[in-house]
Amino acid sequence: MTPLPAAHAVDYAAVENACERIAAFLQPTPLRNYETLDHVLGLRVLVKHENHLPTNSFKVRNAVAVLTSLSPEERACGIIAASRGNFGLGLAWAGKHLKIPVTICVPLGNNPEKNEAIKLYGAELIEAGTNFDAAGEAMQRIAAQRGLRVIASANDAQVIAGAGTLTHEILQQSRAAGETVDAVFYAVGGGSTAAGAIAVLLKAAPQVKAIGVQAELASAIHDSWRSGTIISTLCADTLADGIATRMPYKMTFDAMKAGLADFVLVSESEIMAAMRLMIRSTHNLVEGAGATGLAGLMKSAGSLCGKTAVVVLSGSNIDQATLKRVMDAG
Amino acid sequence: MTPLPAAHAVDYAAVENACERIAAFLQPTPLRNYETLDHVLGLRVLVKHENHLPTNSFKVRNAVAVLTSLSPEERACGIIAASRGNFGLGLAWAGKHLKIPVTICVPLGNNPEKNEAIKLYGAELIEAGTNFDAAGEAMQRIAAQRGLRVIASANDAQVIAGAGTLTHEILQQSRAAGETVDAVFYAVGGGSTAAGAIAVLLKAAPQVKAIGVQAELASAIHDSWRSGTIISTLCADTLADGIATRMPYKMTFDAMKAGLADFVLVSESEIMAAMRLMIRSTHNLVEGAGATGLAGLMKSAGSLCGKTAVVVLSGSNIDQATLKRVMDAG
Repeated sequence: MTPLPAAHAVDYAAVENACERIAAFLQPTPLRNYETLDHVLGLRVLVKHENHLPTNSFKVRNAVAVLTSLSPEERACGIIAASRGNFGLGLAWAGKHLKIPVTICVPLGNNPEKNEAIKLYGAELIEAGTNFDAAGEAMQRIAAQRGLRVIASANDAQVIAGAGTLTHEILQQSRAAGETVDAVFYAVGGGSTAAGAIAVLLKAAPQVKAIGVQAELASAIHDSWRSGTIISTLCADTLADGIATRMPYKMTFDAMKAGLADFVLVSESEIMAAMRLMIRSTHNLVEGAGATGLAGLMKSAGSLCGKTAVVVLSGSNIDQATLKRVMDAG
Repeated sequence: MTPLPAAHAVDYAAVENACERIAAFLQPTPLRNYETLDHVLGLRVLVKHENHLPTNSFKVRNAVAVLTSLSPEERACGIIAASRGNFGLGLAWAGKHLKIPVTICVPLGNNPEKNEAIKLYGAELIEAGTNFDAAGEAMQRIAAQRGLRVIASANDAQVIAGAGTLTHEILQQSRAAGETVDAVFYAVGGGSTAAGAIAVLLKAAPQVKAIGVQAELASAIHDSWRSGTIISTLCADTLADGIATRMPYKMTFDAMKAGLADFVLVSESEIMAAMRLMIRSTHNLVEGAGATGLAGLMKSAGSLCGKTAVVVLSGSNIDQATLKRVMDAG
């Protein structure tokens, strides 16, 4: 990996600091090996169980990291964010535990299960705008009116530092277990996990390859990374809705340019196959984005024969209709 | 609860001792509240996530507890058990980590996914007999021939003490969180979790009601408990195959007679509805037996309005065909 640009906002110390702040709220998640998965893929696979966290996704790390970094004044006024799901859930959970008022803007027609869960954690839910961007614009207006601190889902140094804690744990746990990790596969939505990972790996394990994975149907960041120019797409309609982004974000994209060893694209049917393999071999539930890292590994397995790879099971918040559809397609 | 019979083999000290022995191998599992579940059931519900353990089921507690209690001679010779799934998986995992040779006898035609997983943990798998009882008889013959220590899945004091550790954790965690638990629902197969729970609750929290749950299609222990006489059934064909027992076991049945506050029966469709509710509200995978406690709570929710109940999500080892069937039935 080439050194990070000097302007890169997150370094190893920021991640270590986030580790200390989240420790009072979140237990480390298991890093586990499943012989069945090794057997199918022909290499050693370690699964990082972010689905074991409260709210069932890594996003709660980001949320706790950013909310614990706020000033007393910001905490008292409260925060606002636009989200379709896991980040909103994570913020609602963190706000409840830190006693910080949380407002989440979701687009009209957002998944009702996600909306219900966000509200039940005590956050205020505002439905506005016909798509995610419009919800984001409404969020900015409300923030200005009410004097709320806006929390970006990816383009924020504390969010990235929070996401970096998962790779920090991977290194600690794999070393304690005597594992030699060759590569880690990260699904890329906003890019916080990949950017956080790069901050950790560059300093603490430069020999470990960080590999990004996106869905073919939401490939803006991959395309930008390959071409070296910023590319945005009109739509991003993948089953892996947790990573359905239409454009790169400055902070995370700069890190990925500097630090990703490779970037893999996977099809919808490859994501579905990875979801079924994850369910069959680990007996953990997984959402589309949560299995996208594994889909990337499945595609790359041939070149990693005999090596050790980590996949992040980043979340399990799947609705019943989608789970049914994925199971029926297998 | 009435005091346990004097002959009861497991007391609170035995469970505390098992807690100390398993601590080096198994992290405590989360006890978590899901507002969606509270909302649906009209009471406060805490879910004990035994699916987060290695091998995805509480049985690994029983396995580690019993294997760590063996003499050096027994460890060197190795152990043998009959199992159709989770107990065999737990023993294989524990044997691998304790370096104790493990042999598991399964009936012919046993679930191939379970067989594969047991073998991949390094245990010897022997398929023998057309049903579970016949596999058990074969196991006894092989044990005698090879000089292996036989491990019973329920009728063993150390197994029960191991299962008791989950209730020990429930008490510690609920007290730390300021929760006042009124009742805990345990699916009953061999009865180790219920018997272990009674050993803990009798001493440490006699006000907490332990409630057993069985499937209508595998109701021998319930029927025996209600009638006061030992009743066995010819078959036990429930979707909740992890608790498909045909008769009571002495040690666990004596404890349940002394300590269960109630015993609920649930139908197959009630178990399937509980599986879907567990998946929908917690986004954790669950097998039939793993949702049977919740099925019992759903049936009893009316009488617990406003109270706090714990359900044990005891395992998530479901195969894809069954998961599909359960989802499609909803």
